[in-house]
Amino acid sequence: MHILVTNDDGVNAPGLLALAIEMRSLGEVMVLAPDRNWSASGHVKTLDRPLRVKEVALGDGSPAFATDGAPSDCVALALLGLLPKPIDLVVSGINPNANLGHDVTYSGTVTAAMEAVIGGVPGLAISLCSPENHTGLLDYSPAARLAGKIVAQVIEQGMPAGILLNVNVPYLSDQEIKGIQITRQGLRVYRDLLERRLDPRGRPYYWIGGEAPTGISEDGTDFGALSEGFVSVTPLHLDLTAHQHIHEFQGWKF
Amino acid sequence: MHILVTNDDGVNAPGLLALAIEMRSLGEVMVLAPDRNWSASGHVKTLDRPLRVKEVALGDGSPAFATDGAPSDCVALALLGLLPKPIDLVVSGINPNANLGHDVTYSGTVTAAMEAVIGGVPGLAISLCSPENHTGLLDYSPAARLAGKIVAQVIEQGMPAGILLNVNVPYLSDQEIKGIQITRQGLRVYRDLLERRLDPRGRPYYWIGGEAPTGISEDGTDFGALSEGFVSVTPLHLDLTAHQHIHEFQGWKF
Repeated sequence: MHILVTNDDGVNAPGLLALAIEMRSLGEVMVLAPDRNWSASGHVKTLDRPLRVKEVALGDGSPAFATDGAPSDCVALALLGLLPKPIDLVVSGINPNANLGHDVTYSGTVTAAMEAVIGGVPGLAISLCSPENHTGLLDYSPAARLAGKIVAQVIEQGMPAGILLNVNVPYLSDQEIKGIQITRQGLRVYRDLLERRLDPRGRPYYWIGGEAPTGISEDGTDFGALSEGFVSVTPLHLDLTAHQHIHEFQGWKF
Repeated sequence: MHILVTNDDGVNAPGLLALAIEMRSLGEVMVLAPDRNWSASGHVKTLDRPLRVKEVALGDGSPAFATDGAPSDCVALALLGLLPKPIDLVVSGINPNANLGHDVTYSGTVTAAMEAVIGGVPGLAISLCSPENHTGLLDYSPAARLAGKIVAQVIEQGMPAGILLNVNVPYLSDQEIKGIQITRQGLRVYRDLLERRLDPRGRPYYWIGGEAPTGISEDGTDFGALSEGFVSVTPLHLDLTAHQHIHEFQGWKF
C-alpha cells in the first residue's frame, strides 16, 4: 500500500508530520506537499506555469518532496508519475482548523482529496477542529490515531468509486472523543465583513474580515457530530448536480 | 435588478464585455472582475492579504472595477458591500472554454457563481464551448443572447435557494443551436500527462501537459446536450454529501 500524504499548510506543518508518522503503520508513505501555505486556495490545476519539485526533510529527518504548486497539484503530480512508485491512496492533512459545511469547496485539504478521486484513487481529508482562539502548539496525536483507524478501514473495506472522506476530529483527548459518526455536510454560517482601510499613502485597501464562521449543529451533520464530541466522517462525491430540482427547471420556458 | 457581472479571465476579456452588454437589457449592471487571468484557480477566499480595487473602463468605455483577488473574491467583495448598491444576481463569464463535468470545482467561472449562492443570491456561470484548436477572435454573441434568455427566466421564476446554474453554450450560430436542455453533470475524461524538462541550468521542472480533456456524451448530461447542439443548463448545489453511500459507511467498524 503506497500512501501519499499531502496538506495545504505546507511541508513543514506539524499536522503533516503527525499524519505521515501514523500512516507508516499502514503502508509505505511518500510525502509531497506545497512549499508554502495554500489555505482557502480551492481546487487548483496549474497549467499556465511549470512546477518545481525539491527534496526536503520532515521534522523527524525523513525524506519528503515540496512543490511550488497547490495541494491538488501535489496530488496530480504524484498520480501522473512524479514519484518512483504508484499511489494507492491519498491522505491530506492534518489541517489545524475544521473543514465543515461549505468549507469543502474552498479547502485545500479537501480539494487535494478531490484530486485523488478524479485521478482514480481513494482520498481522505483530515482536519482538527481546534478552538477558535487557540494559541501555542496543537496536539495532533489523537487526530492522527483516528486517521489511522479510518484509513485502516478504507484499506480493509475498499472505498466506493468516486468517493472521498472528509474527516473532522474534535480537539479533545482520546478518552473524551465519543466515537466516529458518518455524517452529511452541514450548513456553514459565514460572518464575513468588509473592512476598508487606508494605506500610508492614503489609498484604500480591503480586508475580508469579520468573525470566524459558525455552523448549524443539526443531528446527522458534521457540525452536529462535532458539537457532541464525535469525529465526523462525511462521504463526499463530485457530482454537484441538484438532482431534486431538475424537473422544476425542465418546466421553465426559455 | 442589480446584476453583478464577473469572470475568471480578467476584466479585459471580450467574453465579459459581451455578457455585460447583454445583461443591461435586464437590469442595472455592475462589473467587478479580476485584474488578471485566474483560470483553473478554484474556489478562493483571500484572507491572508488585503485586496485592492481600481476603477477601469471596459472596451466600450463603460465603467468597471478590477481587483487583485480571485473571481470568488470579486463576488464576496460585492456582496459584502463594496459596490454602492446591493447585488440581486451574479452572472459569471462568458468563459471562452467549456466548464463541464468535474471542471466545476476547478473553474473560476463556476466558483464565482458558487460564492454568490453562499452569499445568498442566485449565481450563473456562462461558458462557451469553443473548438479545441480555435485561433483568432471568438464570437460571443450567440452565447450572450442565450445568457440573456436564461437570466430573464431566473428573474421571472426566481431561483430555488442554494442553487446555481452552470450554463454551457455550443460554438454554433443562433440558427444551428437546437435549444436549451436541463442537464446533469457528466463525466470528464482528463488526459493529463506529466512532462519533465530541464531548464538552461540543467535543473528539472514539470508541466502538467497532455491532450485536452474529453467527456462522456451520455444522454441527459451536459456533454450529451452539447454533442447534439443544445445548450446545457446544469443546476448545481453545494451539498457534496454522497447520500447514497451513508448507509454503507455506517456499517464500517472503526
